[in-house]
Amino acid sequence: MRALYPSEYIPLNQLIIGNKNYSSWSLRPWLLLRELDIPFSEVKIPLYAEGSKEELLQYSPSGKVPAFCHESVTVWDSLAICEFVVDLYPEKNCWPLQLKDKAYARSISNEMHSGFFAIRNSLPMNCRKKMVFKNISESLKSDIDRVCEIWRICREKHPESGPFLFGDFSIADAMYAPIVLRFNSYGIPVGDTENDYMNTILSLSSLKEWVAEGIAEKEFLADCELEA
Amino acid sequence: MRALYPSEYIPLNQLIIGNKNYSSWSLRPWLLLRELDIPFSEVKIPLYAEGSKEELLQYSPSGKVPAFCHESVTVWDSLAICEFVVDLYPEKNCWPLQLKDKAYARSISNEMHSGFFAIRNSLPMNCRKKMVFKNISESLKSDIDRVCEIWRICREKHPESGPFLFGDFSIADAMYAPIVLRFNSYGIPVGDTENDYMNTILSLSSLKEWVAEGIAEKEFLADCELEA
Repeated sequence: MRALYPSEYIPLNQLIIGNKNYSSWSLRPWLLLRELDIPFSEVKIPLYAEGSKEELLQYSPSGKVPAFCHESVTVWDSLAICEFVVDLYPEKNCWPLQLKDKAYARSISNEMHSGFFAIRNSLPMNCRKKMVFKNISESLKSDIDRVCEIWRICREKHPESGPFLFGDFSIADAMYAPIVLRFNSYGIPVGDTENDYMNTILSLSSLKEWVAEGIAEKEFLADCELEA
Repeated sequence: MRALYPSEYIPLNQLIIGNKNYSSWSLRPWLLLRELDIPFSEVKIPLYAEGSKEELLQYSPSGKVPAFCHESVTVWDSLAICEFVVDLYPEKNCWPLQLKDKAYARSISNEMHSGFFAIRNSLPMNCRKKMVFKNISESLKSDIDRVCEIWRICREKHPESGPFLFGDFSIADAMYAPIVLRFNSYGIPVGDTENDYMNTILSLSSLKEWVAEGIAEKEFLADCELEA
């Protein structure tokens, strides 16, 4: 499975992403690659712009971001890219090393990938937004509670080895980073443990760079904006 | 990563599933385990019944099916279970062997896992149902077209090595099997290549067993039923 290259050769990795301000799925593999020091070039295709679908289809058969090109191999969808990176760079420990932790990390990452619709629909990721969102429905509250529970359980299980969900940075942190941004944007109240974890993610220089570039973008997508 | 056991010892695998008639997420890892001859015992917890949430939480921290217990390790969410099985049983080739095929299979499996909301919402899996669904919205048509495109591309790329998406049975087939059941239940018109693929899945003795047991179940969940 491991791709082997001469030591002086750096394989061509390209990550195709959408707007940094809005595209939460793009942020996930981008953050993983950056935090694990995996070299890649970035191709940004602004979402819903004229011709963007056609441009995207040149990279991604689903016509959606993110997509990842490694040499002649293409993989798309955020979590598929992360699992592909696991295979390409086994020495990077994208997942926790212990079997139990890896199972837990993979479970919560997939739970994020297939669910949390109330958060995704009610609190769209928007790097520019800073407000207090008060209209918290039952289903949104249930999603928020579950995310907080996951963060708390992980942090309480791994108090010493590092500040991330499983101590060291892993795919699980990449998958939940857009939720951290959302909770921060919309002033969602959380407990102390969750707040500490959010600060860990918000303090990453890679994440700060993403957010700054998102804020600087010119595109304004009305459908992705929430009224204050 | 590989768990090693004395040769005479069979590790304890338990798969926790919902109603066979309705639970499409449960079917996915169940079919993978059956088709790859991985021994497991089945724990069925009927969905939305009194006490079922509490019972589920004993196995699955998310309170949702499916979950998988391997010795003392628990993993939940359909695709997380499949990827966990990849690690536990590398000799079973749960993904295609070639890097490009594996990337493609993982991409379409994750695309299924995170998307196709119109199919999931409009055409709930229901083993008992046989009707012709005519109220095909734009978004449903778009989802159906994309699924058909995926099946066609895969089958046309792998015409000789076997009848599944990548020749041999893989996680990708497990992920799309509930869509085959839905298209069959609701009389969704598809092309010849897609029809051949659907017949391949519908002819599996494991799938036939699942469907027969689903039909025989006594529970009737009004929210999961579609009117003819």
